[in-house]
Amino acid sequence: MSLKKEALKLHAQLKGKLEVKPKVAITKQNLKLLYTPGVAEVVRAIAKNKKEVYHYTGKGNTIAIISDGSRILGLGNQGPEAALPVMESKALLYKIYGNINAMPLCIQTQKTKDIIALAENISPNFGAINIEDIASPRCFEVVDALAKRLSIPIFHDDQHGTAMVTLAALVNALKVVKKKMKDIRIIILGAGAAGFGIAKLLSYAGARNLRVLDSHGIIYSRRNFLNKYKSYLAHLTNPQQEKGSLEDVLKNADVFIGVSGKKDILSRTMIKSMNKHPIIFALSNPDPEIQPQEARKAGAFIIATGRSDFPNQVNNALVFPFFMRKLLDEQITHLTEKLLYQTALMIAHKVKKQSVDHVIPTIQEMYK
Amino acid sequence: MSLKKEALKLHAQLKGKLEVKPKVAITKQNLKLLYTPGVAEVVRAIAKNKKEVYHYTGKGNTIAIISDGSRILGLGNQGPEAALPVMESKALLYKIYGNINAMPLCIQTQKTKDIIALAENISPNFGAINIEDIASPRCFEVVDALAKRLSIPIFHDDQHGTAMVTLAALVNALKVVKKKMKDIRIIILGAGAAGFGIAKLLSYAGARNLRVLDSHGIIYSRRNFLNKYKSYLAHLTNPQQEKGSLEDVLKNADVFIGVSGKKDILSRTMIKSMNKHPIIFALSNPDPEIQPQEARKAGAFIIATGRSDFPNQVNNALVFPFFMRKLLDEQITHLTEKLLYQTALMIAHKVKKQSVDHVIPTIQEMYK
Repeated sequence: MSLKKEALKLHAQLKGKLEVKPKVAITKQNLKLLYTPGVAEVVRAIAKNKKEVYHYTGKGNTIAIISDGSRILGLGNQGPEAALPVMESKALLYKIYGNINAMPLCIQTQKTKDIIALAENISPNFGAINIEDIASPRCFEVVDALAKRLSIPIFHDDQHGTAMVTLAALVNALKVVKKKMKDIRIIILGAGAAGFGIAKLLSYAGARNLRVLDSHGIIYSRRNFLNKYKSYLAHLTNPQQEKGSLEDVLKNADVFIGVSGKKDILSRTMIKSMNKHPIIFALSNPDPEIQPQEARKAGAFIIATGRSDFPNQVNNALVFPFFMRKLLDEQITHLTEKLLYQTALMIAHKVKKQSVDHVIPTIQEMYK
Repeated sequence: MSLKKEALKLHAQLKGKLEVKPKVAITKQNLKLLYTPGVAEVVRAIAKNKKEVYHYTGKGNTIAIISDGSRILGLGNQGPEAALPVMESKALLYKIYGNINAMPLCIQTQKTKDIIALAENISPNFGAINIEDIASPRCFEVVDALAKRLSIPIFHDDQHGTAMVTLAALVNALKVVKKKMKDIRIIILGAGAAGFGIAKLLSYAGARNLRVLDSHGIIYSRRNFLNKYKSYLAHLTNPQQEKGSLEDVLKNADVFIGVSGKKDILSRTMIKSMNKHPIIFALSNPDPEIQPQEARKAGAFIIATGRSDFPNQVNNALVFPFFMRKLLDEQITHLTEKLLYQTALMIAHKVKKQSVDHVIPTIQEMYK
């Protein structure tokens, strides 16, 4: 059976990957405590002091995964219904790897202010919010507004998760090739949530020669087609106002990071123009910016993709349950670059012996 | 240990009554099907035909329990955090008695239009919505608007659930006292969600002499202090424009139904003024409109309360999981009085042999 048929069949059998299960069996005695009249005492205790909600309910270990379905995986704007199987899978992984109760919330508005209002309104129920698969720049506006307004952490996996796991892989890759972050030239192709998050975090981690490209080429501050977030990237990464195409900027680069959604956009010639021991992270899924075999032929020294059928899978599942567990356990209210950086190093350290084909931990190494 | 201490202790131990659990164990093989790349095929299938969301996800057996915390149990407006333990309990009962996955959503807005927008926006994720513990008349506006806009059922337990279980109890009580619905006089004290729902459903069930009272006395159409919903009740139940106090209207009544939240408001003298074999449903919780012992002394023939420590517990748990199971299984999109009526009769029929102390099924009889 093809992967497609098998996937559809399994999903149809399950009709949902999640169940909401009681933690406790009901008896006549405990029903009085769990439901009326006993629960009224808990209502009173929380009404008296709101913070007690963490003590008496599941809030502290329950999160919402909010998506408007506007950018599902690499498949574009497919709407909230189509987003649901993905968010269910995400919730499944949150539970299996992080023991976190995650509730998918696939919503039908795609208006920034309505998404913000919705997330804010449901926040009393949740210990954290995961924003997922919302198109950029809307996702940034949503995340920024919520982080300002709420005192629970707002985690954006496409942005924060991808950045942490990419940095972790790069830290190990640089050990293998014996280069230092501050000395290397890094090219990021793609300036959506992932590209933005990676550029910010690599800058924080000490990258000094970093260029970000979108479909109009290198991002620089005097260019057209800049939104607020791309302007920020221009100032952060390219004060020299360097211009040019992907082909131009890859010359003498050390690292290529592809989060563009563009299949086969990276050519062998481009890799050949890079510095010694090129590091190629072709992370677009399911179709990377270059096939690993092709990249290898062109001299790529370390290759990572988002795929499970090649070595060095840069997989967000390595980070989102791990990081969220940390956020909830330590009752962290706001994400910082420092926190993302420290977490990336923790992930990198899970690899005990780095090698060309092992710069990122496997899921087993991560959650053993 | 007191009930209060025990309830707080158990809640603190559990820290939430619910868990979101995977229905399937993860293996390397099925992860490819459940997550990327396999899940992308499911996304495509649903994007092509939205209705497939019922086939491939948990939507069809997952509901949201939405509360703004503005009228929690009998405790008033205590806010969303304080509502959470109650909604968790509700979800627990939905699972245990109905095998339904219910997600509490305790929200911080108490604005009618924002609640409606929120419920509408999350609707792609859910097979039905349970509106819970929202103050009236806001709850009516929310339920009416959502029922108009959405094609998933909007169930309001305080209104629909209480009405069904009360009608079920009354049907059996009338068999015991050998009276007919069309001949009796029924007094409903309380015109919130419960009073409104009960009055509507009893009218549908054939009650011809029905009066509803709020804190200003009998509701009649020329009275002051009428909102849209109370005006409707006035026209429905009191075309004669009868006026008066509780004491006045109970004279020669057959049935008293209290959903007023007012402890001990019904006196022995009032019961004595009623027709032979008075039926007293003093349903306010935890403190009924009259203590059962008092009612009995005054000649009440059949007594029901909301409490588990007396016979004839009129308990919404008898109906909400049962009814929601039916809504989901039959893919009913809109509630009707006929549907509520038929369901009430089904509940009534679960009592095989009616008696003074057994007009309503126990939870065991209901879900065996």
